[in-house]
Amino acid sequence: MSIQLNLKSVAPFIREHEIDQMQSQVSRAHDLLVTGTGAGSAFLGWRTLPDDYDRAEFDRILAAASRIQKTCDILIVIGIGGSYLGARAVIDFLRSPLYNNLKKDTPDIYYAGNCISSASLTDLLSICEGRDVCLNVISKSGTTTEPAVAFRIFRNYLEKKYGKEEAASRIYVTTDRKRGTLKQFSDKAGYETFVVPDDVGGRFSVLSAVGLLPIAVSGIDIRGLMEGAADAAKAYASDDLRRNDAYRYAAVRNILYRKGKTTEILVNYEPYATMLSEWWKQLFGESEGKDGKGIFPASVTFTTDLHSMGQFIQDGSRNLFETVICIRRPGTAAYRIPADPMNVDGLSFLDGKDLDEVRDTAMQGTRLAHTDGGVPNILIEMSGRDAHALGELLYFFEIAVAISGYLLGVNPFDQPGVEAYKNNMYALLGKPGYEDRKKALEARLD
Amino acid sequence: MSIQLNLKSVAPFIREHEIDQMQSQVSRAHDLLVTGTGAGSAFLGWRTLPDDYDRAEFDRILAAASRIQKTCDILIVIGIGGSYLGARAVIDFLRSPLYNNLKKDTPDIYYAGNCISSASLTDLLSICEGRDVCLNVISKSGTTTEPAVAFRIFRNYLEKKYGKEEAASRIYVTTDRKRGTLKQFSDKAGYETFVVPDDVGGRFSVLSAVGLLPIAVSGIDIRGLMEGAADAAKAYASDDLRRNDAYRYAAVRNILYRKGKTTEILVNYEPYATMLSEWWKQLFGESEGKDGKGIFPASVTFTTDLHSMGQFIQDGSRNLFETVICIRRPGTAAYRIPADPMNVDGLSFLDGKDLDEVRDTAMQGTRLAHTDGGVPNILIEMSGRDAHALGELLYFFEIAVAISGYLLGVNPFDQPGVEAYKNNMYALLGKPGYEDRKKALEARLD
Repeated sequence: MSIQLNLKSVAPFIREHEIDQMQSQVSRAHDLLVTGTGAGSAFLGWRTLPDDYDRAEFDRILAAASRIQKTCDILIVIGIGGSYLGARAVIDFLRSPLYNNLKKDTPDIYYAGNCISSASLTDLLSICEGRDVCLNVISKSGTTTEPAVAFRIFRNYLEKKYGKEEAASRIYVTTDRKRGTLKQFSDKAGYETFVVPDDVGGRFSVLSAVGLLPIAVSGIDIRGLMEGAADAAKAYASDDLRRNDAYRYAAVRNILYRKGKTTEILVNYEPYATMLSEWWKQLFGESEGKDGKGIFPASVTFTTDLHSMGQFIQDGSRNLFETVICIRRPGTAAYRIPADPMNVDGLSFLDGKDLDEVRDTAMQGTRLAHTDGGVPNILIEMSGRDAHALGELLYFFEIAVAISGYLLGVNPFDQPGVEAYKNNMYALLGKPGYEDRKKALEARLD
Repeated sequence: MSIQLNLKSVAPFIREHEIDQMQSQVSRAHDLLVTGTGAGSAFLGWRTLPDDYDRAEFDRILAAASRIQKTCDILIVIGIGGSYLGARAVIDFLRSPLYNNLKKDTPDIYYAGNCISSASLTDLLSICEGRDVCLNVISKSGTTTEPAVAFRIFRNYLEKKYGKEEAASRIYVTTDRKRGTLKQFSDKAGYETFVVPDDVGGRFSVLSAVGLLPIAVSGIDIRGLMEGAADAAKAYASDDLRRNDAYRYAAVRNILYRKGKTTEILVNYEPYATMLSEWWKQLFGESEGKDGKGIFPASVTFTTDLHSMGQFIQDGSRNLFETVICIRRPGTAAYRIPADPMNVDGLSFLDGKDLDEVRDTAMQGTRLAHTDGGVPNILIEMSGRDAHALGELLYFFEIAVAISGYLLGVNPFDQPGVEAYKNNMYALLGKPGYEDRKKALEARLD
């Protein structure tokens, strides 16, 4: 495995027997998961996806990606929440957070339909000017407001630019297999479609067509990603806490939560991992934050945030723990720090040192400092920055949150709270059928 | 004022008399602030900066910005923490988070020296290839590791590309007025220098040369920014809680904290405000997170994060409150949602609606939903997206955190915890004088 859990810096906060005493609860959670008898069991498709995914569709994804690479300068990915965070996390991680600014052979990738903002839209349309554009619309139902509005706008834009027929060849739709008006409309309009599986929730969908098509367009080896996830599925199949790192992570975070550590900060040391943290926040926050419970998920990118959130983590309210992703050897070449002959900065002890070794030393120093400050540090060590290792990590978090949610006593696979704002918004916007709610809400507004 | 505090959605959680009963504590905090008798009083320069800033330096900033605009395609801003978050927040907010991808007359702006990452560095250097580059190095001491290392690298790069003399004309240094080797070295090398004021801490420095030079390069009206801040300084001069919005914000968040609301989420509805939240997180986290106390600062950008963190906020652990920045009329033109004649998305009630009105409706619906879910909502209403209004907002937060920190009983102007990781890192890297610490730390590593 490329992923290893290291609990050395949790030891001062959790006694050995506390982990042992979680075994029976973990075994029970494991049973619920593997027998499909727990809450939310209609959404367990992610478990077996890395092994039993649709090979024919996978080949279609590769073919479509190659066509998109050839026919456009910009791919606009329209989706919100789980319909875009996974792709963006993987592309930033394996290519670059500055992907769109780098010289490269693959199209720029921009994300739309994840907010309601004329400012964003205006920027995006101006960026498209004079360049060839393709669309990947990702929406299971086709009726979610943000992506639906963006799809209206960009469909109009493409049809005006290319005519209806060529526009159709530039639109790729990832949606429900059969149901839903978007599927029917796409078939009629001649858009190529891909499937959002019925049994995979949005936040678990990165390894389906939802994530894989944009990821493939960016030039990433999606086969390596799937193989990494498949290896992880094998590695995390046992319910034995001493042998299953993902389950041990789930157990430890629940132990810490029960001790009053109510916020978990996912820490990374590379700007390319920042969006991975956003994906993780949805995965954990949406799976566990319900019924008045749950560990609040936050994230930081060090060392930059050591100079903003570092003070609080070192010395503020002690309701925190950190989970640190240490990527041991990034794929990029090592970079040696040039000497400063005049020693202007007083850091001559850094002359000639490998930049990434300095980063790793900052990581070690910080871990010890934060542990000394009363913040338990869970380490997830990753042997490299590559598709296979990242596939492992994604699956590690998916299976960990499933077990963790069952340990917490919630349904890790639903998200009932997301409807509340939508229903209010629909009512206030005058959606038919919401008249009573509209009246009640309007009375409460200023 | 362009900024208004609206506490209507806090009313269900705080009784009127609770705010009144904070008046005496607030008045005492106000006294500490205005008489300079509180903790950290050596760092109160930000209070009067909008009025008494150095006019001659301000003109030099404008002149340098105009020179940079003419002589380069890319400005690299080297700084970490308060030495870069303010500029980045303002540029993203008033120009665009996609600033570097837009066609424009001003240089691209990239940020370096805020992490230790060969991956980032490699990307940045490749982006600079074939383009003209200027540097703005921002470091009070010149000895902070991250910017110092980046400065070594980019100074070498410029000197190789342009020769020593032309490189010197492309390097702008914002540093200590007199002390520090960076100031001495810059004078000798012929770099133009600007001042990091002695009495303004990093997180309060956005309205000094630290923030203003890069902001001016991006084409933003820095005079408008200063005027907005100056208006705010006048508006928030009274200690009367009923008349001072900034103080009322400080009081309310302390009341909520004392009731167990230990996490504050700064909410915005525009991607262009995302980096403003990062600036805010440093301002509040670093000012208050100490002595085992403090409200944990987090942030979300809606509606995108309603589809990731929305579930948790609606229905998870009830230790949260939200502070929502509502920007009423953005500077960009309104955008009407095109009709979808086939009603594929079932949202025909949106046909022809103004996109930003839909956004505001989402905001209202969400506020009511979250309030119903048990999350107090503080609103900060902003009349527009312009330099003057943003100047007000920056000052609003600065004075609010000063009062809030005194209410909490901490020194809002120091950051002792930031040294812990640095000292460990120096020791592990073999800095002379840290030999004993090095030995002790190494014994604890795996």
